[in-house]
Amino acid sequence: MAPHRVRVDALAPQMTLGPRETRHLHVLRLREGDEVRVFDGQGAEAAATLTRLEEAHAVLTLGERLTGAAETPQPVTLAVALLKGDKLADVVRAATELGAARVQLLVTRHADAREIGAQKLLRLRRVAEEASKQSRRAVTPEVLAPVPLGELTWQGKLFVAQPGASARLTDHLTWDAPVTVLTGPEGGLSDVEVAALTTRGAVAVTLGPRILRAETAPVALLGALVATGV
Amino acid sequence: MAPHRVRVDALAPQMTLGPRETRHLHVLRLREGDEVRVFDGQGAEAAATLTRLEEAHAVLTLGERLTGAAETPQPVTLAVALLKGDKLADVVRAATELGAARVQLLVTRHADAREIGAQKLLRLRRVAEEASKQSRRAVTPEVLAPVPLGELTWQGKLFVAQPGASARLTDHLTWDAPVTVLTGPEGGLSDVEVAALTTRGAVAVTLGPRILRAETAPVALLGALVATGV
Repeated sequence: MAPHRVRVDALAPQMTLGPRETRHLHVLRLREGDEVRVFDGQGAEAAATLTRLEEAHAVLTLGERLTGAAETPQPVTLAVALLKGDKLADVVRAATELGAARVQLLVTRHADAREIGAQKLLRLRRVAEEASKQSRRAVTPEVLAPVPLGELTWQGKLFVAQPGASARLTDHLTWDAPVTVLTGPEGGLSDVEVAALTTRGAVAVTLGPRILRAETAPVALLGALVATGV
Repeated sequence: MAPHRVRVDALAPQMTLGPRETRHLHVLRLREGDEVRVFDGQGAEAAATLTRLEEAHAVLTLGERLTGAAETPQPVTLAVALLKGDKLADVVRAATELGAARVQLLVTRHADAREIGAQKLLRLRRVAEEASKQSRRAVTPEVLAPVPLGELTWQGKLFVAQPGASARLTDHLTWDAPVTVLTGPEGGLSDVEVAALTTRGAVAVTLGPRILRAETAPVALLGALVATGV
């Protein structure tokens, strides 16, 4: 069985856990001497030994550091339009599993929503943290507060999913620079918005001739990325 | 604006609609003489004119037939293990948007569920029908009752998503024969199950080094298919 993974603030020779994580160790019937994994959400992960287990706190002793085998060769950003309801939570969860290092929320012209509450943003960040644990990633993707699409900046390549586009993601994908994939809101991006992006160097790519829901497109596009083996 | 799409039993010179579809025409404020689209869920789609609109029924007159522009060059089957709760509905919905012609449910060794009730299967079929409308497909994917994995048969190529596999879907994908993509349950397929498939000619393909939830893997794999432009 894979060892239990514990999120810590930072990797240190001795790491003390608070009541919440400690309770979880009790639920799992772990005992002093058992091996666990620790990760900091920034890419560092290591083996650790449970050296002390009290009622409400526990101490872990750092073991061998592990390399971030679950990360893509270059950081992947998902830039996604604000969506209604719980759809963004589903998108963030899947994007985390699919290796995104960052989720940048966007305000677009045909917007399902124009802003996001502080509580909801916090919840998305919790979803990312939980999903990174479950998918055994050492990195928790950042979830960044929305910016207007026109103010989005990116490094490396940006791919925007656009109905009617003919370019294929895999034909343009090289892993020599960071990658951003961008998807629109339920009503789609406007032609003007897509043209503004391609003028700035973005590549409009196809996801086939069907109409995808706004919450399906990012998963499909990130799926195409990871199917290359990264 | 795209014309309203109406599902009919079969394309015919005159097609009479029942109360339910007719009510929808009233809600949309359509009038006699307006253009609509008709589709039969089997791949046939055509233009049609609303030639009579009564309170509880309506008549459509067939126009020009359209080719199935939203269909893949060869039929795509998603073979997916039974999953708990509402996860299969999400998978069927996304698979429909992503062009699957068929969803074959599977009973696997590590099964989240070993059977599916008649009501639930019916609901999955309704989800497929609704999603085919929304994604503007003329074909509604069949949703087939579960078979044990060992009894699955397929035509053409079968790709099975497997953690640790090194082959890439896009390196093996040709559109000269039907395509089946297969994903497992929450606990994954057993090595024995995957070996039995590859012995029969299946190709085990990678979706990257992370652990994907059972409901994310099919969307990612079908996403990789459609990102080739089909």
